[in-house]
Amino acid sequence: MAQKSKQAHTVDTDQLYAMRHSLAHIMATAIQKLHPDAKFGVGPVVDNGFYYDVDVAQPITEEELKAIEKKMAEVIKANYPFERRELGLDEAIAKVTAEKQDYKIELLNDLKVHGTTSAKDIAGDTLEVTRNDVDVTTVSFYKDGPFEDLCRGPHLESTGKVGAFKLMRVSGAYWRGDQSKAQMQRVYGVAFATRDELKAHLTMLEEAERRDHRKLGQELDLFVFSDLVGQGLPLWTPRGTILRRQLDNFVQEMRDEYGFQEVAIPHITKKELYEKSGHWGKFKDDLFRINTREGHEFAMKPMNCPHHTQIYASRPRSYRDLPIRYRETTMVYRDEQSGELGGLSRVRSITQDDAHVFCRQQQIQVEVLKLWDIVERFYGAFDLKLRLRVSTHDPEKMEAYTGSAAAWESSVAQLEAIAQGKLGDDYEIGVGEAAFYGPKLDFMAKDAIAREHQVATIQLDFNQPEGFDLTCTNEQGEGERIVMIHCAIMGSIERFLSVLIEHTAGRFPVWLAPEQIRVTTVNDTDELSDFAGEVVADMKLLGLRAHLDNSSDSVGKKIRSAELAKVPYTIVIGEKEVRTREVTPRIRKDLSVKEPVAMDVDLFSKSVANEAKSRTMRSSL
Amino acid sequence: MAQKSKQAHTVDTDQLYAMRHSLAHIMATAIQKLHPDAKFGVGPVVDNGFYYDVDVAQPITEEELKAIEKKMAEVIKANYPFERRELGLDEAIAKVTAEKQDYKIELLNDLKVHGTTSAKDIAGDTLEVTRNDVDVTTVSFYKDGPFEDLCRGPHLESTGKVGAFKLMRVSGAYWRGDQSKAQMQRVYGVAFATRDELKAHLTMLEEAERRDHRKLGQELDLFVFSDLVGQGLPLWTPRGTILRRQLDNFVQEMRDEYGFQEVAIPHITKKELYEKSGHWGKFKDDLFRINTREGHEFAMKPMNCPHHTQIYASRPRSYRDLPIRYRETTMVYRDEQSGELGGLSRVRSITQDDAHVFCRQQQIQVEVLKLWDIVERFYGAFDLKLRLRVSTHDPEKMEAYTGSAAAWESSVAQLEAIAQGKLGDDYEIGVGEAAFYGPKLDFMAKDAIAREHQVATIQLDFNQPEGFDLTCTNEQGEGERIVMIHCAIMGSIERFLSVLIEHTAGRFPVWLAPEQIRVTTVNDTDELSDFAGEVVADMKLLGLRAHLDNSSDSVGKKIRSAELAKVPYTIVIGEKEVRTREVTPRIRKDLSVKEPVAMDVDLFSKSVANEAKSRTMRSSL
Repeated sequence: MAQKSKQAHTVDTDQLYAMRHSLAHIMATAIQKLHPDAKFGVGPVVDNGFYYDVDVAQPITEEELKAIEKKMAEVIKANYPFERRELGLDEAIAKVTAEKQDYKIELLNDLKVHGTTSAKDIAGDTLEVTRNDVDVTTVSFYKDGPFEDLCRGPHLESTGKVGAFKLMRVSGAYWRGDQSKAQMQRVYGVAFATRDELKAHLTMLEEAERRDHRKLGQELDLFVFSDLVGQGLPLWTPRGTILRRQLDNFVQEMRDEYGFQEVAIPHITKKELYEKSGHWGKFKDDLFRINTREGHEFAMKPMNCPHHTQIYASRPRSYRDLPIRYRETTMVYRDEQSGELGGLSRVRSITQDDAHVFCRQQQIQVEVLKLWDIVERFYGAFDLKLRLRVSTHDPEKMEAYTGSAAAWESSVAQLEAIAQGKLGDDYEIGVGEAAFYGPKLDFMAKDAIAREHQVATIQLDFNQPEGFDLTCTNEQGEGERIVMIHCAIMGSIERFLSVLIEHTAGRFPVWLAPEQIRVTTVNDTDELSDFAGEVVADMKLLGLRAHLDNSSDSVGKKIRSAELAKVPYTIVIGEKEVRTREVTPRIRKDLSVKEPVAMDVDLFSKSVANEAKSRTMRSSL
Repeated sequence: MAQKSKQAHTVDTDQLYAMRHSLAHIMATAIQKLHPDAKFGVGPVVDNGFYYDVDVAQPITEEELKAIEKKMAEVIKANYPFERRELGLDEAIAKVTAEKQDYKIELLNDLKVHGTTSAKDIAGDTLEVTRNDVDVTTVSFYKDGPFEDLCRGPHLESTGKVGAFKLMRVSGAYWRGDQSKAQMQRVYGVAFATRDELKAHLTMLEEAERRDHRKLGQELDLFVFSDLVGQGLPLWTPRGTILRRQLDNFVQEMRDEYGFQEVAIPHITKKELYEKSGHWGKFKDDLFRINTREGHEFAMKPMNCPHHTQIYASRPRSYRDLPIRYRETTMVYRDEQSGELGGLSRVRSITQDDAHVFCRQQQIQVEVLKLWDIVERFYGAFDLKLRLRVSTHDPEKMEAYTGSAAAWESSVAQLEAIAQGKLGDDYEIGVGEAAFYGPKLDFMAKDAIAREHQVATIQLDFNQPEGFDLTCTNEQGEGERIVMIHCAIMGSIERFLSVLIEHTAGRFPVWLAPEQIRVTTVNDTDELSDFAGEVVADMKLLGLRAHLDNSSDSVGKKIRSAELAKVPYTIVIGEKEVRTREVTPRIRKDLSVKEPVAMDVDLFSKSVANEAKSRTMRSSL
């Protein structure tokens, strides 16, 4: 069986979780010593570490983190046992009230009134929370030395058992993530079982910073933001647009092999479309909404499926016409909060390489496998290794989904069978990670510095065909309900580029590079300029993106400039090159370890053109 | 000198104008006889004819038009002279009040109070209207027999002098075009100097109806509308999307020859961008506006230029980098009133094949000529003959424009010089037809049934570079103000397609046809199906859009189906074709007058592939 990600931790990850959780308490213990007035919010475990949200009269600075670490070391050295006790709810409220822990008072009162607290609060996992409105009568506390905290646990045996950690930063955070509530400080640290693992993580972070796509995007002139246009709305320069276009062409060529047809829809619609699809009820607040001059309510599309159903539904379809496969790369829009925007990772204008297959039940497997093949070929072309998660509904929260539990069981089983047929047990299951209209295959890609990113997705949808009454006439001449499959290969071009820029550190393979060849001259005489100009013109005729640098700068400066722009090939034209028509290309280091040799300039150009067509990651020179 | 379109009518057009105007009065005379209670609104001359807006107790039906025509014939036969008289304004008000002509009372009272009436009213030309707030003391009336009407004239000498006419339809119209005001009826007729001209016009209208792009769009499955998505928001099917893509590729290939680079921008922006560009002040009400969840005001882009300036402005530019030429085909949005929407002619989601050149003053001429060359090649490929209008500012209404009168004079002179250099005097001048930011070259295309459509436009813009402070560093190291040139070749793909579908009657040239070749079989045996399937697969490898019809229908039915789909080439595969590998293509009639001959099937495919590449309008077979 595939591993269910939400159901089981291995012993290792359980141990790591408890250790990071314990460090959150140890950090709180230290902060309380340094700031006796500290009021504590929530202190959860997160990827690679932990944080605690605190409210202190004298704000914690980055400089103070060292002092907190030192105080934590004392708590660790003291090796206090973590002691659990349970208190009745009223008793617990009395305790935190006596301690003037205002945020804990609020949490416990919520628990008392509603039997639960909101998802934002339980992110902290510091509170024993029940899923539905069930009576809660007791809560647990954990004590380490002088500090005792409301907490569901688990913890290590004692403070001395923690591994290696480092406090990373302090930032602002609103209580309960709500801008109208108190502003707190979030103190964040990373922690690993061993010092070596911590060191490797810190090295990776440094490398990630060097590769930061926001920095490289600026240096390589790929995209820009404008204060007049607004946050989360990238403007794509000519170089960035080449990347977008090349990536999309690659996806669409593969789609066309499998019979996809391009369609085009507008970016807005009457709200009635989303009322019928179910999106209005679920995502109304995430939409950019428009009141027209005639008083109608429109919305910008946050996805394309409902529009595409209207093309399918525009005429009668026979089973002989199916599968019908629509593809469209287009921008969708979501009214993201400005605090959540960052570079290309989270934007408001999202370019989806979207596609929808309209097919019969018995065609699902073949169609999913076609899409999966495209996913594999696409990520394979970048040496990005994939891992699969089958994202299912959460049977305990059926109110979050459209469609019956039975229909969900059946479609999840269908997707799992496809996954097993291809991967055996080598995938995991993400309970509760499905879209509201159906289960999906989610692909995670591991990048060059071992970070994982959620990328492609293939989704089954039995619900929009129901809502929009999509059918085909079958062999018996009857209307038969069809199925939709949604599939974006890149997910969004913005997000994929944020991954790819960092994965490659901006050293794009030749087929993708905005500038493939830089032709430089050793001086700016007409003879060399003319020859170099002809060479560039010939390259352009071969479809290559070649640029001429015949400025009066020194050769050294010209070569450095090409290196900074991460151009795959640079050639230098001097008098000898004009005479022999032979060039010795400088090859960007990641493309080849071989020493370049002199070759006929036309042969060179043709080789690079072939290389670009084959979409290889390495130089063939 | 080029003819100024707003300044001079020829004797002919003056005569035609007076005749159509007189027919409006004659029709009103007839309506008054049949509907003594009739209250009259405005009754202007329009393209090819005239109308009158009337308010009658017993609504006029299409069937009644014959009776009105008959009554008009009596008025014409009576040959009443048109008699003009002038009345003081108060006297005129007393007269129309006595006649209970409520709409005329309102117009005259407006004139008395404001010295003018709104643009919507003067469309009728039935009123002596002054441009600005000048005292009006007298107005003129024209009388023909029993009917006398407030009117500026001119008219024919008498009712008997009119040419040939026909009443076409009756439709609803709001008084002053305002939905909150009274609903009237608009009775519309066409009129020409001779019976032959009228007949030719009516024949053209019939042909236009046969070619109606809304009808053909449905029949050829090019685009659809959905009530759930909304009016004016076409959804492009696979076949329609091929048309869009092919047209755009053609434009963009030519642009690329001239050094344009593709960029990509989002469809929304903070309003600040448009406040700075000046669009907010001018067009605020035509924009789809958005209030974000964080309380900011955004707008959907109605054009791309302000966004593109932000890419230009994102880094310092040297004179050596110029011209910088951005191109982008993208949808822009305008909140058009639903009553004004129709098929593809006027939509809310408008795909512009937009481009902006950022250049120096001295580069304008060369850049404009490059764009003009693209315009000529593009329209030439469809046998669409172009006529040029140089659209200038109206010196009497400088408040409608940004920039000084002197700057406008100079840029108009520059554009006129370019036009004269290329066309001599063979162009017209459209005073007041400029964009608010600069003068432009507007191209009008004449279609296969002699209708003229405004299509491409090349615009000079000295004002956005000012507003956004766009400069380059010149040879002296100083910041130099640059110029922008805007140019859409198709204008909008929707509007161009509405023209092209009707121009070609849906018979697209091979390179553009969504389906280029239909391969049919004389029966549905495996032998023929397999061979035909291989033929289609080979054609697809050549990049051709070929479809297989191996259904069990009769050959006759299959051929008719291909004809209805207006497929350029159809081949029929029987046993002989399998044996000889020779086919005799059926060629769509408009492509060739030659009788097709039998030819090797591979040769046929290659010929069609070459034909498609060369973008010819005729078959080379």
